[in-house]
Amino acid sequence: MAGEPECEDLYPSRQGVHRITQRQDPTVYAPKGRVAPISDQQINDYAEQGFMVLEDMFSAVEVNMFQQELERLRNDTEVKQSGETITEPESGEVRSVFRVHENSPLFRKLAADPRLAELARYILNDEVYIHQSRLNYKPGFRGKEFYWHSDFETWHVEDGMPRMRALSMSITLTENFDYNGPLMLIPGSHQQYAACAGETPENHFQSSLKKQEYGVPSDDQLKQMAQSGGIVSAKCKPGSVIVFDCNVMHGSNGNITPEPRSNVFFVYNAMSNQVVAPFCDQPPRPEYICSRENISAVPPAE
Amino acid sequence: MAGEPECEDLYPSRQGVHRITQRQDPTVYAPKGRVAPISDQQINDYAEQGFMVLEDMFSAVEVNMFQQELERLRNDTEVKQSGETITEPESGEVRSVFRVHENSPLFRKLAADPRLAELARYILNDEVYIHQSRLNYKPGFRGKEFYWHSDFETWHVEDGMPRMRALSMSITLTENFDYNGPLMLIPGSHQQYAACAGETPENHFQSSLKKQEYGVPSDDQLKQMAQSGGIVSAKCKPGSVIVFDCNVMHGSNGNITPEPRSNVFFVYNAMSNQVVAPFCDQPPRPEYICSRENISAVPPAE
Repeated sequence: MAGEPECEDLYPSRQGVHRITQRQDPTVYAPKGRVAPISDQQINDYAEQGFMVLEDMFSAVEVNMFQQELERLRNDTEVKQSGETITEPESGEVRSVFRVHENSPLFRKLAADPRLAELARYILNDEVYIHQSRLNYKPGFRGKEFYWHSDFETWHVEDGMPRMRALSMSITLTENFDYNGPLMLIPGSHQQYAACAGETPENHFQSSLKKQEYGVPSDDQLKQMAQSGGIVSAKCKPGSVIVFDCNVMHGSNGNITPEPRSNVFFVYNAMSNQVVAPFCDQPPRPEYICSRENISAVPPAE
Repeated sequence: MAGEPECEDLYPSRQGVHRITQRQDPTVYAPKGRVAPISDQQINDYAEQGFMVLEDMFSAVEVNMFQQELERLRNDTEVKQSGETITEPESGEVRSVFRVHENSPLFRKLAADPRLAELARYILNDEVYIHQSRLNYKPGFRGKEFYWHSDFETWHVEDGMPRMRALSMSITLTENFDYNGPLMLIPGSHQQYAACAGETPENHFQSSLKKQEYGVPSDDQLKQMAQSGGIVSAKCKPGSVIVFDCNVMHGSNGNITPEPRSNVFFVYNAMSNQVVAPFCDQPPRPEYICSRENISAVPPAE
C-alpha cells in the first residue's frame, strides 16, 4: 500500500464533490525573453488555449516509418501478451500499446527528437522525462468514444503528480477529419481545475483505460466550460503534432467511419515534478502507465 | 403473418450475401423542363449527391415553436406510455417520438408546409404521403451513434416499399456542429444498392431503432463507397432542411458534447409507391413506424 503523500495536495479531487477551482500553476514556464523553438504567437496561443496543432512537423517518409512500427507492435505476440495493451470493449481490437518509448527503439528515438523534446523543455522550463507513452489505434467502423477528462486529474490523484507541469504530444499518423472521432478540446479549460465527485475504486486503471467512469467532470462543469470556451476539433493531416496541456479538458466521439485514427503519444513531465505517492487511498498504477521507478531525463539531441 | 409479396422484389436483401447492385430508379422524377421550387443547381446537386442542405428555410420564431412542441411531446405522459417513443439504450432518455404528423397539430401542418411538401412532390413527381415521421432528440453527453444504413433497405425489406421513390426531410432544431454527432452522408452512394447479409429477426424494429445490427452494410461495402464518394458531415444552423434520398448511405457518430441535436423528421413517399407486403418472412412493422392502413395524401397548401 502507498504511504502518506509526500507533499501538499494542491488539487484535491474525488472527495465527494464536483467543484471548479483555479489553476495554481503557469502553463508556459519559460522565462520571458527566452527564444522559443516555435513562433511567439504559437506559444501565446498555447498559453491561452491550452493546446496547439503544429502541422507538417514530420515528413511522409517519417510517418510511414512510424506506421510500420505501429503495425509491427500491434501484431507482436510478446507485446500483445505483455498485459500492456488495451483492447476495445466490444470488438476486442487493440486500442493502445503502452511504454513504446522503452519497447521500441524507433519511438525511443522519436521521444528525444528535438522537434518534440526541445519544445517540451521550453514550455516546462526544465529537463523532461516520459511519464507515459502509447500508440493509439482508434479503429474505424466501431471505434468507441473517450469521455471528457483532464489528464492531470487522473495523474494527480492516481499517480501522485504534484503540479501542473506536464504536457502531451500526439503525433498523428492518419488524417484527423471532423468525422472520424478527432480529439476535441475546450479552449481555456486548462485554467480551471474540475475536481470530480466519487472515490477511486480499486484497480481503476484496468477499466478506466477502456471507459472512464470515475474522475469525469459533471454535466454542469462541462456545460459551463464549453459555454465559456467553445469546443474545437483538432483536424489535421498525418505528421502533425497536437500539443496539449496536462489540464485541458478533452475527449473524443466514437468513430463509425472507415477511417482509423492512429497516433503516437508522449507525456512529457518536468524532472522537478516527478510523481510522489498517489493522492488517493490506492496503490500506484503500474509502471507501464506511469513511470515511477524508471525515470531518466530524455537525452539531448546528439 | 404476411402473405406473399404483391410485386416483384427488385431489391432483394438479407438473403445471405453482401452484394452491391445498381439503382434501378431515378432520383429526381420531375420531367425535364418543369420549374423546380428551388434552383436547378440545387436539384442537379441533389440528383448527383443524393442529398442537399437547404439553409434558412424556417425562421427563428418557427424553430422556437417547433422546439416548444418537441419539449411538450417529450414530456407528455400519454406519448411516453404510447409505446411510440424510443429511449437511449443506456441512459433511458427519450431519443425519438414517432407519428408526430398525426399526434401533433403543429407538426401535421408542418408536414404539409409547401416549403417541404411542394419540393417532395416535385422530386417524386407524384402526390405524396408521410411514410414515417418522428422527432429525434439526440441528447448531449451520452448520445449514441447510429450506424451506417440505407433507409430504403429497411423500408423495402421490412415495410414492403416497392421502389426508390421516397425521400426524407430533416428540419434541424438545434445547430449541427461538426462535433455533436451530425448526420454523415456518402455522396453518390444512393446510386448503388448495398444488399445486406443475414436475415431479419422477429420483431427486429424493437431493437433496430435503438441499435441496428441487421440490415447494415459490410465494412468492405462501406470502405468502397466512402473511397469513391467521400464523407460529408451535414453541418448547419437550426431551421435548415436536410433533404436526402431514401437510398443514400448515412449514419452518425455518438455525441459526448453538451450540445444536443434535435430535429423533426418526415419521410415522404410517392402515392404510387405505397407499401405492399414486406419482402421478408416477417409481419409488417407497426403503423407508427410505417403508414400502411392510414394513408392519405398530404393536402395541398391552403
